[in-house]
Amino acid sequence: MKVGIIGASGYGGVELIRNLYQHPNVSLELLVSSSTQGEQLTAQFPHLHGILALPLDGFDENEIRSQVDILFFTTPAGVAKELAPSFVEKGIQCIDLSGDFRLKRGSLYKEWYKDTPAPKEYLDLATYGLPELYRDKIGKSTFISNPGCYPTAALLGMAPVLQSGLVNFSMPLIIDGKTGVSGAGRKPAKGMMFSEANENTKAYKLGGHRHVPEMEQIAADISGMDSPVIFNPHLVPMTRGILCTIYIQLHETIKHGEVNQLYENFYQDDYFVRVRTENNLPATKDVYGTNFCDIGISIDQRTNVLSVISVIDNLTKGAATQAIQNMNLVNGWNEQTGLDVVPVYP
Amino acid sequence: MKVGIIGASGYGGVELIRNLYQHPNVSLELLVSSSTQGEQLTAQFPHLHGILALPLDGFDENEIRSQVDILFFTTPAGVAKELAPSFVEKGIQCIDLSGDFRLKRGSLYKEWYKDTPAPKEYLDLATYGLPELYRDKIGKSTFISNPGCYPTAALLGMAPVLQSGLVNFSMPLIIDGKTGVSGAGRKPAKGMMFSEANENTKAYKLGGHRHVPEMEQIAADISGMDSPVIFNPHLVPMTRGILCTIYIQLHETIKHGEVNQLYENFYQDDYFVRVRTENNLPATKDVYGTNFCDIGISIDQRTNVLSVISVIDNLTKGAATQAIQNMNLVNGWNEQTGLDVVPVYP
Amino acid sequence: MKVGIIGASGYGGVELIRNLYQHPNVSLELLVSSSTQGEQLTAQFPHLHGILALPLDGFDENEIRSQVDILFFTTPAGVAKELAPSFVEKGIQCIDLSGDFRLKRGSLYKEWYKDTPAPKEYLDLATYGLPELYRDKIGKSTFISNPGCYPTAALLGMAPVLQSGLVNFSMPLIIDGKTGVSGAGRKPAKGMMFSEANENTKAYKLGGHRHVPEMEQIAADISGMDSPVIFNPHLVPMTRGILCTIYIQLHETIKHGEVNQLYENFYQDDYFVRVRTENNLPATKDVYGTNFCDIGISIDQRTNVLSVISVIDNLTKGAATQAIQNMNLVNGWNEQTGLDVVPVYP
Amino acid sequence: MKVGIIGASGYGGVELIRNLYQHPNVSLELLVSSSTQGEQLTAQFPHLHGILALPLDGFDENEIRSQVDILFFTTPAGVAKELAPSFVEKGIQCIDLSGDFRLKRGSLYKEWYKDTPAPKEYLDLATYGLPELYRDKIGKSTFISNPGCYPTAALLGMAPVLQSGLVNFSMPLIIDGKTGVSGAGRKPAKGMMFSEANENTKAYKLGGHRHVPEMEQIAADISGMDSPVIFNPHLVPMTRGILCTIYIQLHETIKHGEVNQLYENFYQDDYFVRVRTENNLPATKDVYGTNFCDIGISIDQRTNVLSVISVIDNLTKGAATQAIQNMNLVNGWNEQTGLDVVPVYP
Repeated sequence: MKVGIIGASGYGGVELIRNLYQHPNVSLELLVSSSTQGEQLTAQFPHLHGILALPLDGFDENEIRSQVDILFFTTPAGVAKELAPSFVEKGIQCIDLSGDFRLKRGSLYKEWYKDTPAPKEYLDLATYGLPELYRDKIGKSTFISNPGCYPTAALLGMAPVLQSGLVNFSMPLIIDGKTGVSGAGRKPAKGMMFSEANENTKAYKLGGHRHVPEMEQIAADISGMDSPVIFNPHLVPMTRGILCTIYIQLHETIKHGEVNQLYENFYQDDYFVRVRTENNLPATKDVYGTNFCDIGISIDQRTNVLSVISVIDNLTKGAATQAIQNMNLVNGWNEQTGLDVVPVYP
Repeated sequence: MKVGIIGASGYGGVELIRNLYQHPNVSLELLVSSSTQGEQLTAQFPHLHGILALPLDGFDENEIRSQVDILFFTTPAGVAKELAPSFVEKGIQCIDLSGDFRLKRGSLYKEWYKDTPAPKEYLDLATYGLPELYRDKIGKSTFISNPGCYPTAALLGMAPVLQSGLVNFSMPLIIDGKTGVSGAGRKPAKGMMFSEANENTKAYKLGGHRHVPEMEQIAADISGMDSPVIFNPHLVPMTRGILCTIYIQLHETIKHGEVNQLYENFYQDDYFVRVRTENNLPATKDVYGTNFCDIGISIDQRTNVLSVISVIDNLTKGAATQAIQNMNLVNGWNEQTGLDVVPVYP
Repeated sequence: MKVGIIGASGYGGVELIRNLYQHPNVSLELLVSSSTQGEQLTAQFPHLHGILALPLDGFDENEIRSQVDILFFTTPAGVAKELAPSFVEKGIQCIDLSGDFRLKRGSLYKEWYKDTPAPKEYLDLATYGLPELYRDKIGKSTFISNPGCYPTAALLGMAPVLQSGLVNFSMPLIIDGKTGVSGAGRKPAKGMMFSEANENTKAYKLGGHRHVPEMEQIAADISGMDSPVIFNPHLVPMTRGILCTIYIQLHETIKHGEVNQLYENFYQDDYFVRVRTENNLPATKDVYGTNFCDIGISIDQRTNVLSVISVIDNLTKGAATQAIQNMNLVNGWNEQTGLDVVPVYP
Repeated sequence: MKVGIIGASGYGGVELIRNLYQHPNVSLELLVSSSTQGEQLTAQFPHLHGILALPLDGFDENEIRSQVDILFFTTPAGVAKELAPSFVEKGIQCIDLSGDFRLKRGSLYKEWYKDTPAPKEYLDLATYGLPELYRDKIGKSTFISNPGCYPTAALLGMAPVLQSGLVNFSMPLIIDGKTGVSGAGRKPAKGMMFSEANENTKAYKLGGHRHVPEMEQIAADISGMDSPVIFNPHLVPMTRGILCTIYIQLHETIKHGEVNQLYENFYQDDYFVRVRTENNLPATKDVYGTNFCDIGISIDQRTNVLSVISVIDNLTKGAATQAIQNMNLVNGWNEQTGLDVVPVYP
């Protein structure tokens, strides 16, 4: 299958390139980057010198249609909703890594993204691409909305208990997120300069991050209960990685072992979700550069508050490799195809 | 006044040395370090070359008594409880930076520190040295138990609302802590090696950190209510800094501005606590190397959950400079003496 | 004395602010920053909240003249050469931290800075402000050209042997520089973003850095010999610090101890230069946030090549505190005034 | 083919594991680690959870012989010289990543490693495994001494000019090395702790690093000239990566373009060495996690001094993947087998 990427000069794009290069079933045919159009890919990314010689093209709908079977969008919010529909119409598989098709209610998009939503029919058509929760639907779809990085970590961390009936929703779901700096993208910004971000940890957008309605929508879908999510993200001085610490009130006294078993059962057929045993908490580096999500839990016996630690690499499971996992499912290939690699450690 | 330090070759010790050197009212006379006894201070800390020429001595009670008026303990847990009492007896001002005299109930010490507690009379005698909350008591004491780093950030972040009557304790106080690696001390350990801690964020001791009972004890003292604290600490790849994100359920709908005003009023006479205005969240680097604690807040209007961000430098306000602030109060000096410096930025 | 800063919102500016705040003989009266004019200083630098409340003003020559006795320029190349002369004329002490007055020959400025040089009379008037080498001249001047960061480290590292007659100039002076990212300034640039610079070391401007002619000019002045300097700078993933490794061919076999003695003698009256003993090599962190320059040496006995390691903090001895050291000398104050602080460690 | 690793719990070992897992022609059968014997591999390396379930065994010669066809040694100096010979005798392919068989003259080993050298017959038998220089010899050998990390970067950076006759050896070869912290291994040591190494750059072992005689031996072999190497290594705050800056005196004026062409010709058939064009200098991150060595050059036209920048990942091309490249050659497989991956960026 022939693959193209719209938005190839950002971090999501270059991670797609790295992982698609190693994928046996596809070939990378076309890279579009309006901001660096006309340059060679290696001018933007010298590490690809000698590996991949492709130009960065401008957007040309006809050219793209004639060249690719699968199209990835790693564009800023607001682009895919304009460009993707016509490719979907023509039968090209589309996987959008932006937030344009994640929120099923257009009014929420308007509220959080401050922009006109995509047409309702395409919001309905797009399948939310979190394979561990929606594998079957993804397998029947050709238009995928790839989840946000924080929602991926948070939802995988909460899904087993949300579905279990053990949660007492009188306390909101509280998600404390920590992310590496690459989550902010490649566009120069003062706060993301090395000298500002290094040796520094800061909170940002308390309660105001666009991933809040996405988490609430899927959490409600899993649990059958509408529950507010309190989500506070933090920037920590590393390039990659997300760690979400999740606080959930459980109904009754339940043992650590039982909850751990619940998580293990829930994910027993999911190669990419690894549930840790007690006193063995995951670290972001344990999943570096891969599609894994590692989960560890702890319960406060006095209050029945469950703490869940969920880690991913924001650029892979949080973006590029999850998109490839979705591509595999859409095409009926083994989910692990091209993704069966070992985290880079140390 | 003449000053000595027991435990001078650790990070708490070296920060005491840096800040005491710049203090106009004291002279550093004696450094004790059993692990590096006999070495010159500059052998352990070459950055002090040409600044301070003192040896690292072994512990000799009589020598210490004859040479110092004020004694700081920056020793591991279990040391000060054995050594401090006899100096207190002889009228030497003692400021302990370890956890040995923080918990008023010996049984709690036994449970969390797995060791015999200090004699009850000394637990009663030691004043908890968080100046913004206990300034008057500290001013009348000569034996100070300096707070833990996390409790300093967390308690300063919670005190205004805990005292206000606004808190709904049906939800536990939830504290999500992020710390730099220096909090783990200077003793070599695999998990604290650069190659393991760099480009990595991890959770540790979920619900099991020794600072939990300390936070609960003081939170109860401030609020008049016993409330469990859920405390999950995380290690982030920086040397210094603590950021605590605190989640508190408020009783009723209250506006951001009102809570901000409450915080500003509470700390209006405290030079070292800086309350931020809306949309201006503190970062750990804003207080680097100083005695400041910066606080910012946010309220989720749907749930009335208050989020507080509280940042300190774990080695200064979290240890050495807070101890000097206490020394200033004990001796009736202006609280800012020797501490009126600007954070190092960037 | 009343002090003003032109270019106050950059890293050089904010380090001047930090150190001048702690200086007993001056008060900070006026901050000019054309790029952020109209903002409060704390909007650019929240860490100064509660410490210093000054606005960032636009440039107004008359206002500045009426308000300040001493004026620092921390502006990009090309600004001070236009603005400083009229203040010098009016008797205001001027200390320029840019490269505008460092090169005595205008043609060199034109070649390396690609711009018209300052008028010759002002190039002649400006004193090169490297106190350890030109202390007397600085003391008699009121117009100082503060050295570049790399030249400060390199020239202090070479001066004793350059002056000794021991150097065999048949081999060029080779200087391999390593700098933290703050040397590139505060203006957003892709290569200085955290995600690009972190976990990365790169060479840049091999043989083409503007500091080359500055080093050659002063090296010739010290040694009496014109010698080319090969200077290769590298960017390493830290915020602050410069380490220069210098390779110098000596004429004859000479022992490590003799060269070390030569260095110790040369700097025996210089508080801010610390010569290390054998097997005790300096690290950039040993001088963090201070005006120190630490030097260590090694000799290859087979080839008589001397290796010198010279470290400074690029923002202090490499810029702001060296400028204050110069201010102290210009005004006849003790050189250490306001600068007698301990490096921040760890 | 069945593969075993002696020394599996260090960084060299874990990188072998990562890359061998992805190799199509071999299976990992046996891991030996005397220091962590009896543990599961995942206890040491949680990131391998769910990927590879092998125990860490003690050393048992008979068991190893019966189970493996290829044996890698990632042991400290002094181990392989005792253990490897008997496996070599029995026809098991041995690839030693330590320094035990690199120096052909036993007296040099004694001088630099302070230990008895391996028996002369095995020193003679072992082939120095730098494929780009000794590909043919490696292909005919079954006992490989894998090069040191610094020598790999330095020798690949020097080989084209060393062989060209352009070098004027009146000036020594000067190599200024910068390495990430993982080069120091995984054993806890104070200087390698995060709080000591972060935000810090330091020189170490000036002129005294064990890689000096290794570089001199191979440089002489390539050039036909015995020339001393001045080698000064530095520790920079990153986990992975080596950048060597090499200073070489050329005989006569020669243009940048000609030297660049010389390098391109020299490496035209070497997939893993990438020669950059002018003004396009390599950074360590460009080769992250891969077997590439990237090289850029610059010439000072005044002095004819050539500067070469050579970068590798110290744990891959500097250790594990170069060992696998050697394994491929020994077995007649395509050199890129299992190593054709894209650097992890950012």
